[in-house]
Amino acid sequence: MDRDPILLTPGPLTTTLRTKLAMLKDWGSWDADFNAVTARLRSQLLDIVHGHDTHVVVPLQGSGTFSVEAAVATVVPRDGHVLVLDNGAYCKRAAKLTQLMGRRASVIAFGEDEAVSPRVLETKLAKDASITHVILIHCETGTGVLNPFAEVAAVCERAGRGLIVDAMSSFGAIEIDARTMRFDALVAASGKCLEGVPGMGFVFLRKAILDACAGNSQSLAMDLYDQHQYMEKTTQWRFTPPTHVMVALAEAVAQFVEEGGQAARGARYADNCRILIEGLAALGLEPFLRAELQAPIIVTFHAPKHPAYDFKRFYAAAKARGFILYPGKLTEVETFRVGCIGAIGRNEMTQAVNAVGDALREMGIPTPG
Amino acid sequence: MDRDPILLTPGPLTTTLRTKLAMLKDWGSWDADFNAVTARLRSQLLDIVHGHDTHVVVPLQGSGTFSVEAAVATVVPRDGHVLVLDNGAYCKRAAKLTQLMGRRASVIAFGEDEAVSPRVLETKLAKDASITHVILIHCETGTGVLNPFAEVAAVCERAGRGLIVDAMSSFGAIEIDARTMRFDALVAASGKCLEGVPGMGFVFLRKAILDACAGNSQSLAMDLYDQHQYMEKTTQWRFTPPTHVMVALAEAVAQFVEEGGQAARGARYADNCRILIEGLAALGLEPFLRAELQAPIIVTFHAPKHPAYDFKRFYAAAKARGFILYPGKLTEVETFRVGCIGAIGRNEMTQAVNAVGDALREMGIPTPG
Repeated sequence: MDRDPILLTPGPLTTTLRTKLAMLKDWGSWDADFNAVTARLRSQLLDIVHGHDTHVVVPLQGSGTFSVEAAVATVVPRDGHVLVLDNGAYCKRAAKLTQLMGRRASVIAFGEDEAVSPRVLETKLAKDASITHVILIHCETGTGVLNPFAEVAAVCERAGRGLIVDAMSSFGAIEIDARTMRFDALVAASGKCLEGVPGMGFVFLRKAILDACAGNSQSLAMDLYDQHQYMEKTTQWRFTPPTHVMVALAEAVAQFVEEGGQAARGARYADNCRILIEGLAALGLEPFLRAELQAPIIVTFHAPKHPAYDFKRFYAAAKARGFILYPGKLTEVETFRVGCIGAIGRNEMTQAVNAVGDALREMGIPTPG
Repeated sequence: MDRDPILLTPGPLTTTLRTKLAMLKDWGSWDADFNAVTARLRSQLLDIVHGHDTHVVVPLQGSGTFSVEAAVATVVPRDGHVLVLDNGAYCKRAAKLTQLMGRRASVIAFGEDEAVSPRVLETKLAKDASITHVILIHCETGTGVLNPFAEVAAVCERAGRGLIVDAMSSFGAIEIDARTMRFDALVAASGKCLEGVPGMGFVFLRKAILDACAGNSQSLAMDLYDQHQYMEKTTQWRFTPPTHVMVALAEAVAQFVEEGGQAARGARYADNCRILIEGLAALGLEPFLRAELQAPIIVTFHAPKHPAYDFKRFYAAAKARGFILYPGKLTEVETFRVGCIGAIGRNEMTQAVNAVGDALREMGIPTPG
């Protein structure tokens, strides 16, 4: 039957029909009607982090990684020194793009099955005065681990260093409060927990550092300072915005607010996550992370230790039943990942658990039930 | 009434409902079904320029300017020297982004009301052996002038220099033949004459120079070499693609092929352009460019020399009648622009001409008719 599969991935997600229907209209990007949508969205994004007093928010075309790169390029001076708290694939990507653009980058490596340590960071910052900025991935999507944002922010503030947070897969689902957690830049994107479609990111920049960002970026397209100045002056984007993606995000945020904002969204995802982990545990599948480290965003599971297991066959069998799973991203352990986010709830997660059980049995892998 | 206005702009454009309806589905970006859409689209893009033997094509997230910047970053070595043939605003932008990323950039300035000169280029290249690459804007959207691509390509080939072409607003409407016009990189985007929605660009890269592009880019997100290698290896995009924009473009290209490809698309736009210029001439409005320089993409008109004229009021009066016009981009002459592109034909252009006449008369500006 021609029914869309449910996307159990870290984005693109399953979105509501209402969000997608917003794309059935063409908008002039120079027109005041469209600019009003941009302005309203920017204000609503600031609402989510209680950031009106302390921050501005700058939307940017492209995927979330474009916005991460833009945040580093805009916030870190050319002679800056960035320390990346590394416990996974997206941390490594942040370090790579920082080095590539010619900024000095160092890394503290943590295990992929643990959170980054604010205490280790504190010691490192005390020892190395050359470090100007710290990069933290709030929820490391490579494994699904939640890192201690508030504690890392406190360490950076005490040590007088800048903090850049990649909150790509946590934003909207996990609490972020700019009144109590100090960050210079925080990055998220349209196609994650706000449940829009992919195609743009947005970066919160701390007002106190904004003026110092002028001229940092070597990239015209990724210069968030320039994008912000132009937007404030003209209400428009500098370069053609992804108009349909923008209005879909605006519609998605309206639904986010109606649902009850971050608290309600986070509760729904936590419920999805619990159903998933309990359901797969009953099938004999164990999560990679300890429960206290697990963000309710995406869960990494150990692959079944059975000779008949093969990810490609497992993926195809789940897809045939209407669910798109996600491959693991660990090099040393065989895993697969299942997302808990998107316009899905108890029914979809329960059906997904049942489909995983059916898929395993079809492959000849016995399940305890 | 709740009817969408017609966008007479250089993009975003009025697109067909069929194109927009393609966005009512969520796709997994890791899934083979989506990757097959990407692969088919890339092949169809190569068809349009007859480029299968000579070029590859690499899609990139973001607006067209992101792809221009990516093309320069990927193709020009760090010690390269770029010469920009400048006859308008988009040429100046290309020079600016080249300089900002640390590449040496020079400019030959031409008048905004003339095409760039292949003869002047030839003389310049003969004199300055340090120039490694030339940047040409095929259709300079700032005014609407069509530049002599084939002749510039021939000069660059004879002189053994690379050529980067921004074909943003010409691609799909004006003939480009990779078999006879040699270029190292050619850039276009989803939301222009292919009549997709905005949100991604694509860059054709000459196979013969591809290997030499490794390591040129200082930007991870904009490294087209890396994007191409990864796509060839995995069939996937490196970073989350704008899935809905992608499938809309695929649907738009299917309609482009059904219409009869570039020849038919170009003929429809030429017809739109003729109706527009003749219709506005009858209202006393003169184009900025001489007829032989005018691309059938966007037309710059001199503003009426009447004390009652004001662009904002004119824009509002045309919008109230269902048409979105575009402001001029010239600093020394007061102008406005009207696009001829998008999913529009004779009816829409005739209605637009009538609406412009009504708008002028409402403002108290007499029209000859």
